[in-house]
Amino acid sequence: MAPQYAPSLRSHLAPMLLVLQLGFILIYAFYIEIESNIKVYGITFSNMYPEFHDVNVMVILGFGYMCTFLVRYGFSGSGFNLLVTVIAIQWAIILNGIDNWYYRGKIRIDLKSLVVAEMCAASALISIGVVLGKTNPVHLILIALLEVSGFVLNEWLLQTLLKVPPLNSIMLLHIFAAFFGLMLTRILYRKGSEQPFEKEKVDRKTGLFSILGTLFLCVFWPSLNSVLVDNRTPGRRLGAVLSTYLALAVSAVTAAAVSSLSSPEGKLNPIHLQSCMLAGGVSIGVSMPAVHQPWEAMTIGFTAAVVSTIGFRYLKSHMLLAFKFHDTCAVLSTHGLPGLLGWLAHLLLQIKDCDDHTRIPLAIRFAVFHICSLITISLSLCMGIITGLLLKWNFWRPPQDKKCFDDQAFWEFLHLAVQK
Amino acid sequence: MAPQYAPSLRSHLAPMLLVLQLGFILIYAFYIEIESNIKVYGITFSNMYPEFHDVNVMVILGFGYMCTFLVRYGFSGSGFNLLVTVIAIQWAIILNGIDNWYYRGKIRIDLKSLVVAEMCAASALISIGVVLGKTNPVHLILIALLEVSGFVLNEWLLQTLLKVPPLNSIMLLHIFAAFFGLMLTRILYRKGSEQPFEKEKVDRKTGLFSILGTLFLCVFWPSLNSVLVDNRTPGRRLGAVLSTYLALAVSAVTAAAVSSLSSPEGKLNPIHLQSCMLAGGVSIGVSMPAVHQPWEAMTIGFTAAVVSTIGFRYLKSHMLLAFKFHDTCAVLSTHGLPGLLGWLAHLLLQIKDCDDHTRIPLAIRFAVFHICSLITISLSLCMGIITGLLLKWNFWRPPQDKKCFDDQAFWEFLHLAVQK
Amino acid sequence: MAPQYAPSLRSHLAPMLLVLQLGFILIYAFYIEIESNIKVYGITFSNMYPEFHDVNVMVILGFGYMCTFLVRYGFSGSGFNLLVTVIAIQWAIILNGIDNWYYRGKIRIDLKSLVVAEMCAASALISIGVVLGKTNPVHLILIALLEVSGFVLNEWLLQTLLKVPPLNSIMLLHIFAAFFGLMLTRILYRKGSEQPFEKEKVDRKTGLFSILGTLFLCVFWPSLNSVLVDNRTPGRRLGAVLSTYLALAVSAVTAAAVSSLSSPEGKLNPIHLQSCMLAGGVSIGVSMPAVHQPWEAMTIGFTAAVVSTIGFRYLKSHMLLAFKFHDTCAVLSTHGLPGLLGWLAHLLLQIKDCDDHTRIPLAIRFAVFHICSLITISLSLCMGIITGLLLKWNFWRPPQDKKCFDDQAFWEFLHLAVQK
Repeated sequence: MAPQYAPSLRSHLAPMLLVLQLGFILIYAFYIEIESNIKVYGITFSNMYPEFHDVNVMVILGFGYMCTFLVRYGFSGSGFNLLVTVIAIQWAIILNGIDNWYYRGKIRIDLKSLVVAEMCAASALISIGVVLGKTNPVHLILIALLEVSGFVLNEWLLQTLLKVPPLNSIMLLHIFAAFFGLMLTRILYRKGSEQPFEKEKVDRKTGLFSILGTLFLCVFWPSLNSVLVDNRTPGRRLGAVLSTYLALAVSAVTAAAVSSLSSPEGKLNPIHLQSCMLAGGVSIGVSMPAVHQPWEAMTIGFTAAVVSTIGFRYLKSHMLLAFKFHDTCAVLSTHGLPGLLGWLAHLLLQIKDCDDHTRIPLAIRFAVFHICSLITISLSLCMGIITGLLLKWNFWRPPQDKKCFDDQAFWEFLHLAVQK
Repeated sequence: MAPQYAPSLRSHLAPMLLVLQLGFILIYAFYIEIESNIKVYGITFSNMYPEFHDVNVMVILGFGYMCTFLVRYGFSGSGFNLLVTVIAIQWAIILNGIDNWYYRGKIRIDLKSLVVAEMCAASALISIGVVLGKTNPVHLILIALLEVSGFVLNEWLLQTLLKVPPLNSIMLLHIFAAFFGLMLTRILYRKGSEQPFEKEKVDRKTGLFSILGTLFLCVFWPSLNSVLVDNRTPGRRLGAVLSTYLALAVSAVTAAAVSSLSSPEGKLNPIHLQSCMLAGGVSIGVSMPAVHQPWEAMTIGFTAAVVSTIGFRYLKSHMLLAFKFHDTCAVLSTHGLPGLLGWLAHLLLQIKDCDDHTRIPLAIRFAVFHICSLITISLSLCMGIITGLLLKWNFWRPPQDKKCFDDQAFWEFLHLAVQK
Repeated sequence: MAPQYAPSLRSHLAPMLLVLQLGFILIYAFYIEIESNIKVYGITFSNMYPEFHDVNVMVILGFGYMCTFLVRYGFSGSGFNLLVTVIAIQWAIILNGIDNWYYRGKIRIDLKSLVVAEMCAASALISIGVVLGKTNPVHLILIALLEVSGFVLNEWLLQTLLKVPPLNSIMLLHIFAAFFGLMLTRILYRKGSEQPFEKEKVDRKTGLFSILGTLFLCVFWPSLNSVLVDNRTPGRRLGAVLSTYLALAVSAVTAAAVSSLSSPEGKLNPIHLQSCMLAGGVSIGVSMPAVHQPWEAMTIGFTAAVVSTIGFRYLKSHMLLAFKFHDTCAVLSTHGLPGLLGWLAHLLLQIKDCDDHTRIPLAIRFAVFHICSLITISLSLCMGIITGLLLKWNFWRPPQDKKCFDDQAFWEFLHLAVQK
């Protein structure tokens, strides 16, 4: 069974993991210490811990189980997701602390550092969703390292050059990750991918696992959007939670309606429902800092679900056939378009509230908005191209076409029951 | 495959969802705003958020996955559950805010409004458990809208006419939902249902998903019972959590014992264990405001599990054969009887503690108790009959008998792996 | 189908459960009351509730679903786990409160009592993992009662004789449980177990359920390690959370590397990944009180994963063939060795920090350390032998060899779909 490919795991994966891990331990030994000031910006441990945990559940359980929908790729979906997450988090903690290290010589970590690192890991996981099943774990780790580096660079550019608040720039993770992943899959395009791969299939039971993952994401999404909201303005966190909640609810209803309308038989598609609920969460996440009324959140959720369902139904195959983007988890419709939509909504809402709260002229806002989008999208496309070219190198031994979407290439099954 | 029925989803479900959703957005745009007073009744955001989340997990993950036990109805079980939840929550927020709107012109929402709305949604989900598999999603949404309206009306009647505290009246949701659902299934009775439907079956794997859902409910139940308990009396929330916890533990042990005793082969039944654990939670939830000692909670859990297991073993088939109640999820034994038992325990405990704390004469307590039960049960039965008659209308295109309990009628499976 | 064995459930299990449960209710009625002092040692209800919940999720969902990996033993894995947990918790609350009862006549319970009781239950669940599939539920309940008694006795000995802080002595649960279980399985050894049992197999889907359970454990493990940490020293809980988090991350990466290195085909083994992540959590849990720097936690996680993966790969079959320890869940590699490793790390770190914080001479520390290990290990071995001898008694009707690892012996399947 592909004996010429499987050993790549031993000869590449194991040394890579060991070197990375020992390197991380060394860096942490010299430069990282635990924050001893227990109350930073009015947020205590007890205030933040439950929301930190929810984000943790989303990243590990939510993303992991969402990726188990492929019938023969469940172990890889959840296992590689875990591996990538823990590496990306350790890497992101270091990268996010670089300026801290620059000024103080030490990086101090607290719950907030972990939350930010988990969001960076989430952006890596989104990118990986695009190429899931067509790569080996060595690829995935390289993608994660480069994607996280690119995302942190993007965040730093926006925060230092354009004075974008941290919350806003972090929430661009959906846009960055989606375009990064798309460019990556374009470069890694395999001939013959117009036809679905032999094992690119869903099963009833794996579908249920995947719905479970999605529901984890939905249930805990309000925490993802509220955890970094400043506690000092009273009511902002409550607003973030309620807006996210309502946007998710609206997008679920809308996705069901549009899915049924656009189906030839008038039936619902479980994958539409899953992806489009998330689309609502993505949009509201990106536009969160400007949302102040429940109906604004609901309208954003509604639009996101419409865009995403239609994108899923028509755009996915079009992108594949016309532009050779093979997008396993439909990340463009789930994160890319809703992210852009949310960013646009952010701008519109800011313009609407302009004379009320702010003193920055409209033209400057427009400019900042466009430059932000421009930087994020171009940086993500560039990083995607670089990563793609690196991964095309045969040294990393990509799985053969017929081994794609198959756990067998990477996992050993001892005493496995005969498949019934 | 049933081309004459499937399109009903497009022609009825999609317009219905869109109209409902756009209507909700309009109502929210004009009448709903986010509470800006961050500390209501001594409960801050951080105090309430973890428990709010637990309730959220229960309603979406718990109920959703509990309903996946049918081997060919997993997508519908979890998907329709989600759809019904999000619609019921939006509807309940509006209904619960009507008096607020009447006096102030605006409905202010905070975490507590969401929690109450989720409990209303839970009551709709319980009712839907009775008719699961024999209805289409249009039915389910109508049931949810009417059930929630009835339940909010009931709550309002009890609170304004009888001065029942809000916590007590909300906890009657189990009783209301069970009797509503029973009356509904009686009216929707199909000839030939004495025999199990062709696809009304459980599978090992779907059984495990269903146990997962139940465990979510059990683990987070203490939050459901404590979240609305007044924070101002110190120790009441702790008491609620501990009582619920102990009652659930006792009911699990008791359910196993009674299930094994009543089985012809002396074996355990996984569904008994699941339902009867929940029965303990239901009983203690309804009687919570009067429980002050651990042993009281444990005795209530014990009795509830005995009643529920015996109800499950003997009453379910008896109700079907003798009275034509086809009760898919055995809601009568899981929520109806334990709910009544809890209400009775509430009365008894209040009488016991009578001379200690209170000054209201015993006779009046008795009267209030009976009137409460009377109002709740009659209103639920009436609403059940009205809903049932509405749903009997063929316009809603009920699924054919052989399409019952089958995902195929509602969901499209693209690239589905051949069932192995 | 084994009619001569199945009835044992009715004739033994049901009376046992009823007697135990009624006994517990009686004891609780006379001796247990709810703590009315809401703020104990600076920890309020709201501070502790989220972490209490996480521990609850770990014990019920995590351990329960981790044990569903056997293809025909999923109901038993999760169901018996639940049964054992709820009995062990009720029992542990009583045992832990004995000195309270001795001095005050009443046992007062609060969230902390429940958390400690859940940790005792966790230790029983670990022991049960060793004999899973080869025992009936009556055995499991006896094991749980005796194991919890032994563990509480051990804790009491360490705390009163050696003045070990409560947190340190509770964290020895992994070591105690592992050695207790090992001795038990040695005594219950069945001839012919060198060959895997007929039904001791894993399936893709049950593997995914098991990974789900493991991920629950990993995600919530930081709460397990931090919940009992004293809140009065600021930053200690934050430190506990971050250390656990980093240790788990490192152990996941390391486990993947070592698993791939030690596999003949260079592939990953999903069970290694699962067990060895937990190993990191175990080690860091035991050494937690002495860990102050992130890199210390990471090094401990690294070492634990190496030891555990190698133990899993080579030691498990060696222990079976050479010493007749049939260890279903590989508890020795997952909890035993990493626990000892953590305890050793605890000592080393204490010695390192010796001159900084403490005034107790090194020699005494060494002595206390060795006596602790000695007491814990000898007590666990003794209790294991006693329990094993008790269970060997044929009165308890052990399952026949061919009924091992089979749900059919204990669960009735009504309307079960034909296995496809």
